[in-house]
Amino acid sequence: MSNEAPAFTPEVDATIAAVRAEVAALHGELVRNGLVVWTGGNVSGRVRVGDDPGADLFVIKPSGVSYDDLTPENMILCDLEGNAIPGTPGSERSPSSDTAAHAYVYRHMPDVGGVVHTHSTFAVAWAARGEEIPCVITAMADEFGGPIPIGPFAIIGDDSIGRGIVQTLTGHRSRAVLMQNHGPFTIGVNTKDAVKAAVMVEDVARTVHYAREAGPMIPIPQDAIDSLYNRYQNVYGQSEDTRR
Amino acid sequence: MSNEAPAFTPEVDATIAAVRAEVAALHGELVRNGLVVWTGGNVSGRVRVGDDPGADLFVIKPSGVSYDDLTPENMILCDLEGNAIPGTPGSERSPSSDTAAHAYVYRHMPDVGGVVHTHSTFAVAWAARGEEIPCVITAMADEFGGPIPIGPFAIIGDDSIGRGIVQTLTGHRSRAVLMQNHGPFTIGVNTKDAVKAAVMVEDVARTVHYAREAGPMIPIPQDAIDSLYNRYQNVYGQSEDTRR
Amino acid sequence: MSNEAPAFTPEVDATIAAVRAEVAALHGELVRNGLVVWTGGNVSGRVRVGDDPGADLFVIKPSGVSYDDLTPENMILCDLEGNAIPGTPGSERSPSSDTAAHAYVYRHMPDVGGVVHTHSTFAVAWAARGEEIPCVITAMADEFGGPIPIGPFAIIGDDSIGRGIVQTLTGHRSRAVLMQNHGPFTIGVNTKDAVKAAVMVEDVARTVHYAREAGPMIPIPQDAIDSLYNRYQNVYGQSEDTRR
Amino acid sequence: MSNEAPAFTPEVDATIAAVRAEVAALHGELVRNGLVVWTGGNVSGRVRVGDDPGADLFVIKPSGVSYDDLTPENMILCDLEGNAIPGTPGSERSPSSDTAAHAYVYRHMPDVGGVVHTHSTFAVAWAARGEEIPCVITAMADEFGGPIPIGPFAIIGDDSIGRGIVQTLTGHRSRAVLMQNHGPFTIGVNTKDAVKAAVMVEDVARTVHYAREAGPMIPIPQDAIDSLYNRYQNVYGQSEDTRR
Repeated sequence: MSNEAPAFTPEVDATIAAVRAEVAALHGELVRNGLVVWTGGNVSGRVRVGDDPGADLFVIKPSGVSYDDLTPENMILCDLEGNAIPGTPGSERSPSSDTAAHAYVYRHMPDVGGVVHTHSTFAVAWAARGEEIPCVITAMADEFGGPIPIGPFAIIGDDSIGRGIVQTLTGHRSRAVLMQNHGPFTIGVNTKDAVKAAVMVEDVARTVHYAREAGPMIPIPQDAIDSLYNRYQNVYGQSEDTRR
Repeated sequence: MSNEAPAFTPEVDATIAAVRAEVAALHGELVRNGLVVWTGGNVSGRVRVGDDPGADLFVIKPSGVSYDDLTPENMILCDLEGNAIPGTPGSERSPSSDTAAHAYVYRHMPDVGGVVHTHSTFAVAWAARGEEIPCVITAMADEFGGPIPIGPFAIIGDDSIGRGIVQTLTGHRSRAVLMQNHGPFTIGVNTKDAVKAAVMVEDVARTVHYAREAGPMIPIPQDAIDSLYNRYQNVYGQSEDTRR
Repeated sequence: MSNEAPAFTPEVDATIAAVRAEVAALHGELVRNGLVVWTGGNVSGRVRVGDDPGADLFVIKPSGVSYDDLTPENMILCDLEGNAIPGTPGSERSPSSDTAAHAYVYRHMPDVGGVVHTHSTFAVAWAARGEEIPCVITAMADEFGGPIPIGPFAIIGDDSIGRGIVQTLTGHRSRAVLMQNHGPFTIGVNTKDAVKAAVMVEDVARTVHYAREAGPMIPIPQDAIDSLYNRYQNVYGQSEDTRR
Repeated sequence: MSNEAPAFTPEVDATIAAVRAEVAALHGELVRNGLVVWTGGNVSGRVRVGDDPGADLFVIKPSGVSYDDLTPENMILCDLEGNAIPGTPGSERSPSSDTAAHAYVYRHMPDVGGVVHTHSTFAVAWAARGEEIPCVITAMADEFGGPIPIGPFAIIGDDSIGRGIVQTLTGHRSRAVLMQNHGPFTIGVNTKDAVKAAVMVEDVARTVHYAREAGPMIPIPQDAIDSLYNRYQNVYGQSEDTRR
């Protein structure tokens, strides 16, 4: 494999630079929201290079590097098989050990623009019991449109994590899946949207944990869940910043 | 509707500027006290424009904007129907998605000077069970004069949230209501007072959650609750900073 | 009562200045350790003025003032009845609403150099059940020499809180008492020592809460508690910084 | 005993300086990760001085000093009996009250390059019950290769803590032991590795606490634990930063 950086169009170069900056910066939100410790957790963002989503790239953080040391330059540009693109900044390092799972999602879900993985406390607690989070608070209906599903137990090192994410989230309203015994993966139309989902899934995992601990919860009727979800997806936020 | 800003008296202009600054700044207390994540939560403040409280205005945050980016200038000035006043700073953006509920409270409770809404963890946990918080700690007797009540389940998008808040809090000592399956709304004589109530309701929701989890709690006799509440409302704090 | 500041010796003036500075600064430790919200909580320090401890003074924070705004100058100098000394800096404001309890402790426990009160979450949770914290962790044996006791239910506004603190802690190893339905008061040989006790009592209240929630705890034999307590009181820390 | 600093080779002097700086800085990670309060907790690092590990030294923090005041210069250089080396910077102060336990570990485990002790909340909660943390989350399999074991109850002041640590961790995959009724001690190939273990043991102690509180957890099959552990020890991180 050549060690020379490939020649992209100026437009793609600009997109790569923007995604590197965004992915590096958004890792800070994982720290700020208490979702990660030490070097755990990872954020990635898709780079759209043309009409064929199969030719897209993505940017992800290096493995085992402190959150304080993440910069646009040491983010790693990968192809959709999860291989670092030789000759590009950061490519001398190993990408996140979860890179294969991110790559699988980008290959099989062309609308996904961002992927996030953490071991946030309460989301992992539900995952350790293999129990979906029931939709008993309106913020969860707004954001996820129903319960947060559990994905299969999968060992790192082959495609099984990526496959479990894609199988669970395809056709599901939720942008978050709790991989059994492991933790949450979230997807979004862009990186920021996936990070928001990672923040919100821990928030609802924590709140519903405490709610249920103290007695029976009141279910939200399905038609109210549907109505909350539809309104939030279409109305919330500023027009320049809508999620979908 | 004209797009020109209305002409207020210099006194009202000064009040608007002061409320914009206060509302923008007090959003920072929600973050600092861990009551909100991402762009959730909202604070508003009444602008008194004359002798008729029905002609008052209020200032509220824009929808879906990061807490880091809130400034006096992007706060939105609304009439008591919840419509942004055209031509005023910030009016090109959508106000908070909870604006209708704030407006309803200002219309129906003329003494209310500030309204706050959050999805703070423990308050929402009680709300998901539809269970009022019993008054078993003296700080709660001081601040709320008894239990924190539950409001009805209400869907966003019409007046039902505002109506539920007003029906529950009218004639009640508590300045906080936990809307079922949703979360806390608090009111105050001014914005700071409503923010204080939002901070305190989460504090007591958390403390009483942990207290009850571990065994039976000791009730406080009603006459002691009354005595604590009356003293605190009349004596506490500096004379220039009393709440009522 | 004259409004002129009394004339102290230069030595007493220097002590007052030092205690004002220390008390103001140590309030910051309550915030940093998450023991207080809004304007709750208070720290005081004794000013020794001569051979008669009954003639001592103490310094305490003003009532209802934000932690951000506390300075040595707005701390309030009080006599042992809890009255602000007229003409001294800060005396135009009301002292903390818990001043009477601090004063009672200084009057009746001449060795006490500092008093702290908070509504820290887990300590209040034990207090709401009226349940002492059992000594099942070595850090608690080190610091408190046994369980943290419960004090009586007492209404603010007369001497009953101060009396409850003094009756409970006199002759007790613990420097912390959990006043029933109210919260922790801690004492120390100086202000810093009392603040340390406030930090440690919340730490052990939280840890033992979680420990017990999940199953039976292993008791520490009384002779081991004694041995840990005696060693820690005599050996720990630097000679210039020992507590006793 | 002479009060003159011993003459080391320039290489050893450089190593001492590097370990002092690293040990001082890494104490900050205990604070940042919420593992310690007040002056509790301690970090040490081995100084390799030649071919005989029995002649090594180690650097540890002084006893009872605020985390804000720790610097490379006030770290204390000790021999493997835990005695401060006279004449070296910091040697006029008492080393951490846990120094004997650190020394025992360095004497009996020549591969250990760093030791950390904290009273972090959830790890101590498991220790108060004398209950090992079961391996039900993949992050725990990665990092510790199985459950976190409990060490014996041991009183400070003789070799019993050190002996308990060494007996429990020798031949064990886990780099963390929960000393009964006391708290976690962690070891590592270097100081940073031991600090990482202290951060991770609290993270898994907390997550598994919450997981189990809410219902039965799903075990991870032993062969999956083995596979996760082996992969993580050999693959994770950058080649210049691997742990083993």
